[in-house]
Amino acid sequence: MNTVELIRKKRDKLPLTEKEIKFLIGGFTSGKIPDYQFSALLMAILLNGMGNKETAALTETMLNSGKVVNFSSIKGLKVDKHSTGGVGDKTSLIIAPIAASAGVYVPMISGRGLGHTGGTLDKLESIPGFKTDLTLSEYKKVMCKCGAVLIGQTKEIAPADKLIYSLRDVTATVESTPLITASIMSKKLAEGIDGLVLDIKTGSGAFMKTIKDASELSRSLINTAKSFNKKVIAFITDMNQPLGNYIGNWLEVYESIKILKGESKNDLYNVCLKLAGAMLLLGKKTQTISSGEKLAKQQIENGEAFKKFLEIIELQGGKINYINSPYKYPKSKYAKKVRSIKKGFIGEMDTYKIGMASLELGAGRKTIDDVIDYKAGIILNKKIGDSVEHGELLCELRADSRAKIKVAEKMILDAMHFSKTKPSKHKLIKKIIV
Amino acid sequence: MNTVELIRKKRDKLPLTEKEIKFLIGGFTSGKIPDYQFSALLMAILLNGMGNKETAALTETMLNSGKVVNFSSIKGLKVDKHSTGGVGDKTSLIIAPIAASAGVYVPMISGRGLGHTGGTLDKLESIPGFKTDLTLSEYKKVMCKCGAVLIGQTKEIAPADKLIYSLRDVTATVESTPLITASIMSKKLAEGIDGLVLDIKTGSGAFMKTIKDASELSRSLINTAKSFNKKVIAFITDMNQPLGNYIGNWLEVYESIKILKGESKNDLYNVCLKLAGAMLLLGKKTQTISSGEKLAKQQIENGEAFKKFLEIIELQGGKINYINSPYKYPKSKYAKKVRSIKKGFIGEMDTYKIGMASLELGAGRKTIDDVIDYKAGIILNKKIGDSVEHGELLCELRADSRAKIKVAEKMILDAMHFSKTKPSKHKLIKKIIV
Repeated sequence: MNTVELIRKKRDKLPLTEKEIKFLIGGFTSGKIPDYQFSALLMAILLNGMGNKETAALTETMLNSGKVVNFSSIKGLKVDKHSTGGVGDKTSLIIAPIAASAGVYVPMISGRGLGHTGGTLDKLESIPGFKTDLTLSEYKKVMCKCGAVLIGQTKEIAPADKLIYSLRDVTATVESTPLITASIMSKKLAEGIDGLVLDIKTGSGAFMKTIKDASELSRSLINTAKSFNKKVIAFITDMNQPLGNYIGNWLEVYESIKILKGESKNDLYNVCLKLAGAMLLLGKKTQTISSGEKLAKQQIENGEAFKKFLEIIELQGGKINYINSPYKYPKSKYAKKVRSIKKGFIGEMDTYKIGMASLELGAGRKTIDDVIDYKAGIILNKKIGDSVEHGELLCELRADSRAKIKVAEKMILDAMHFSKTKPSKHKLIKKIIV
Repeated sequence: MNTVELIRKKRDKLPLTEKEIKFLIGGFTSGKIPDYQFSALLMAILLNGMGNKETAALTETMLNSGKVVNFSSIKGLKVDKHSTGGVGDKTSLIIAPIAASAGVYVPMISGRGLGHTGGTLDKLESIPGFKTDLTLSEYKKVMCKCGAVLIGQTKEIAPADKLIYSLRDVTATVESTPLITASIMSKKLAEGIDGLVLDIKTGSGAFMKTIKDASELSRSLINTAKSFNKKVIAFITDMNQPLGNYIGNWLEVYESIKILKGESKNDLYNVCLKLAGAMLLLGKKTQTISSGEKLAKQQIENGEAFKKFLEIIELQGGKINYINSPYKYPKSKYAKKVRSIKKGFIGEMDTYKIGMASLELGAGRKTIDDVIDYKAGIILNKKIGDSVEHGELLCELRADSRAKIKVAEKMILDAMHFSKTKPSKHKLIKKIIV
């Protein structure tokens, strides 16, 4: 097979065969096909797309570039959740213990913060001692012991994805439905799961800005999962404002504790019940999503979910005294209360900008080498639709530097758009696709 | 400026500014922008196209990556011709001396064989002693002395084009109208010309298979030339069969001698009169193309064109005894006469295949390291529309190896399609665009 001919094929909108895809991925990962040919191929895939069969073959090839976890010794069903990412999206921390506490196995491999969005791994690592870099055998051990485990992508899992992703990142070929699909699904399938809940975010803080784009990605993910005989439920959920009220790594762990203890019943709580409900359905603990939601609620109310959370953290080396007594956690040097200079309603939020403001405070990385300040972040007191009086508290910013707070404050004020009349709220769950 | 952002812009069909194009080309040629980013950009350009302004800016940037010849000391007008290439296309060898003999300056920088097509440089180098690798100062000297000069692209001329072309070649990004336009025009403009005749080939032996593609390229080349205030006349000419009767390097020099001596008046002769006529018009030696054709014909008949041919060859180091006495030129070991096993008319020819057959005989390179056998090639006795009797001579194949002849013979017989009724001939000049 000839690499140039295969690039030409995709360039001319002809479908690639499974054999050809294997040749291309194998050639690239082994170094036989140089970067410059592969990036031309990636651009042709982004612009001309891929059919279902091609996407499935790409996923399978990437999956088989590494190890697939074998959980056959575990009798229960293994279900995971994947979110396309947003601002304040800490659902993984909440629903993994909920589902595990009800007997569903949750083998979760997560990522780090990307651009303006936070990452589950970074949030978990804000818990002193918590280890996310388990080996595959440690991963299996934790899963067997407590029913859930939360780690990062190991070298053994879909190494082709890591290589391809780093090339996509520098060649403007990230935003391609088949490439995103294969990247997500190759990692998720490597976890050895039976079912998968998808949380496709859409809106000003999401990678998919429109419901159309989000639906297209959902469809592609579902088709691919089905071709591997995996059960999937996809939710398209709102990311036109941060999810919940806390943004920043430890702050998000803190909000997760509040939700798991039943102390907060905000939008985050509602999305978590829905996602956990779907996981419980896929794990055959209930018959419908709504009965799953009820079960999830019950697991919060009876304290089992929080107990499971402590168990997971302890098994992965985290110090649970901070979870039991969050007030003991180190505080930022500065906490700035931002008050409104206007009166009215919060109309819209530029959620991307709010995510960037939290990066500015130290809660994320601007370059790959940046060190995260786990304490830093934003506590939102007002969200879309809330009325605001002159001088009323909009949010609180936390950082170790006054200069950082100054920059972030300006960004946040720019990101909050006021309205004279009460705006209609964005629907939290926009679509469920099965 | 950020390279990824600029790739994204082109990916999303937004036009690049002149500044951005300069940044990209400058970055690539200086090695600051790596191959893998540039090839993704090339694929985005191929698939999303470029507007007139972008193509002109790209051309200018590539032109200015090297030297532009300054011929201001020469008072006469400088006119060149560019052909997109085909099989048996040796018009440069004929029209350069015609135009120069009539007082038009012809500073011609040509290329080598590409794929199934021959190259002017290779043909010229079949003349023992002929030097095509003149320096720019030698180039100017020859031009001043005899009014015409035929060389290859020097390192000083549009070096960005050479770099970009070698990346396009291995990333399936050759067939892009704006990239082809910038590649051709940057080199032609570097010659210091006032006018340019374009010969855009179309048909089974051309890179542009359809008149639509050929027209699009013509339009792009003309627009770009005009943005540099250069006068252009474009011809779309037929490449559904080889041009003339001889294919192969020395064989094509031989046919050029015959045309320049007025001994052959075939399709090649007619195309040459038309192209030379246009050059004479652009060089202000006549008022119309047709009066230019008459003047060209006259320069052949009065012997001036052939005299000029000898002069150019001698000035560039070529041994003119072979031009004066072609029968002295070394002969191939084998000359195989291919006779028809059918009766009828030649209906169509797969000209691409005929070009590949001549490569097979040794007249071209299959890989970059192949050494050309200048003697090898094909002499066609029949062309489209000719009647053929059983056993009549179709063509003669020349090579130093019987095995090569065997392979080429099969290819040629496959490439010639017979028809029971006399087919209508392809129009030689399909379109003139000014």
